[in-house]
Amino acid sequence: MSKKAIILLSGGLDSITTLALAKQQGYFCYALSFDYGQKHNAELGAAKKIAQQYHAIDHKIIKLDMGSIGGSALTDDKINVPESLQNGIPVTYVPARNTVFLAFALGWAEVIKANAIFIGVNAVDYSGYPDCRPEFIEAFQKLVRVATKAGVEGKEITIFTPLISLSKAGIIKKGTLLGVDYAQTVSCYSADEKGRACGKCDACRLRATGFAEAGIADPTKYRD
Amino acid sequence: MSKKAIILLSGGLDSITTLALAKQQGYFCYALSFDYGQKHNAELGAAKKIAQQYHAIDHKIIKLDMGSIGGSALTDDKINVPESLQNGIPVTYVPARNTVFLAFALGWAEVIKANAIFIGVNAVDYSGYPDCRPEFIEAFQKLVRVATKAGVEGKEITIFTPLISLSKAGIIKKGTLLGVDYAQTVSCYSADEKGRACGKCDACRLRATGFAEAGIADPTKYRD
Repeated sequence: MSKKAIILLSGGLDSITTLALAKQQGYFCYALSFDYGQKHNAELGAAKKIAQQYHAIDHKIIKLDMGSIGGSALTDDKINVPESLQNGIPVTYVPARNTVFLAFALGWAEVIKANAIFIGVNAVDYSGYPDCRPEFIEAFQKLVRVATKAGVEGKEITIFTPLISLSKAGIIKKGTLLGVDYAQTVSCYSADEKGRACGKCDACRLRATGFAEAGIADPTKYRD
Repeated sequence: MSKKAIILLSGGLDSITTLALAKQQGYFCYALSFDYGQKHNAELGAAKKIAQQYHAIDHKIIKLDMGSIGGSALTDDKINVPESLQNGIPVTYVPARNTVFLAFALGWAEVIKANAIFIGVNAVDYSGYPDCRPEFIEAFQKLVRVATKAGVEGKEITIFTPLISLSKAGIIKKGTLLGVDYAQTVSCYSADEKGRACGKCDACRLRATGFAEAGIADPTKYRD
């Protein structure tokens, strides 16, 4: 039986590690990225290179106008990306983003008859986004069974979250053992067009701390 | 407390009835449509007029490239819209469409602090799409509670499906009592650019039978 998987590939540290893990497990990998109005769309350039490097069977970059809904510092020009830590769920949260992303992945999985979707969510060293938590993934998995023709026909499409309970340092160590080159990834929410990081946003802080704790040299290119 | 609702508005018979019902219940209505690559995008012109007529507070038409995923007669140029009834789930099924639509509605609901989402799905006189059934809606409702910041904060966003157990004739009778003008709606999967219907596809058949059974004159404009 063919093992086909959709891999949600943002172009960041977590998603490249997820792709490397799926490859290692023998999946034929179909990479899926979204041009959803994110200010830091340099990550899409990174995603393209990564998909090629890992010989993804296909790589789709879907245009999604999430900016027109607004409500997030990542998509709304009226809200700045914060440069200090915030209490609670931060303004970089994009309402329902992972629900939309997984819904698209589900649609594509049905069309190509993939039996797996990999998403690099993490609920340890993360920004507190509700749609990165295990309870969200479990609820989405239940939805999958009733949402699709595949589900009605008894074909399981499984959502895999191999990073969900790892620390950022743990993810970096795992990826490094798999030969992942993190230099080409973009995590920063304010990355410039060359993918250079600000060093100040939530995503930069989590990433830098992860490399430090892993004891691995941080290859991130910073702007200053 | 303000009662704000997102109404999924395709421009067809079911969604106009749903909008009329939400208005009748006193909701401030925000209409949401999708330009998702459907061949019958004349429905979007209808949706625009309907949103204006019902004084929607806002009407967003979100561009979504579902055609690039393919797999449906509604979005894929390589698959024709069938002109006869099919067994099982027909090729007009768009993989994960309602999951994607509801996910977007959920995101917008969070941003504008709406407490309701109305969707005109129907599981009686319908095409057998899995994502029109009560079990799908129930699973999505459970997902809502864990997917969003609103959910984490204990704010309920309720999915309403006022048509789900009505026959097509029952929907038409209900809408007619509410003063709905069905002449302006487009149901046909092969509607031409003026919104004129083919009279042969699944959607046309269900609609025509509905008017006949309701004993109400069918205002549909046909091509021939």
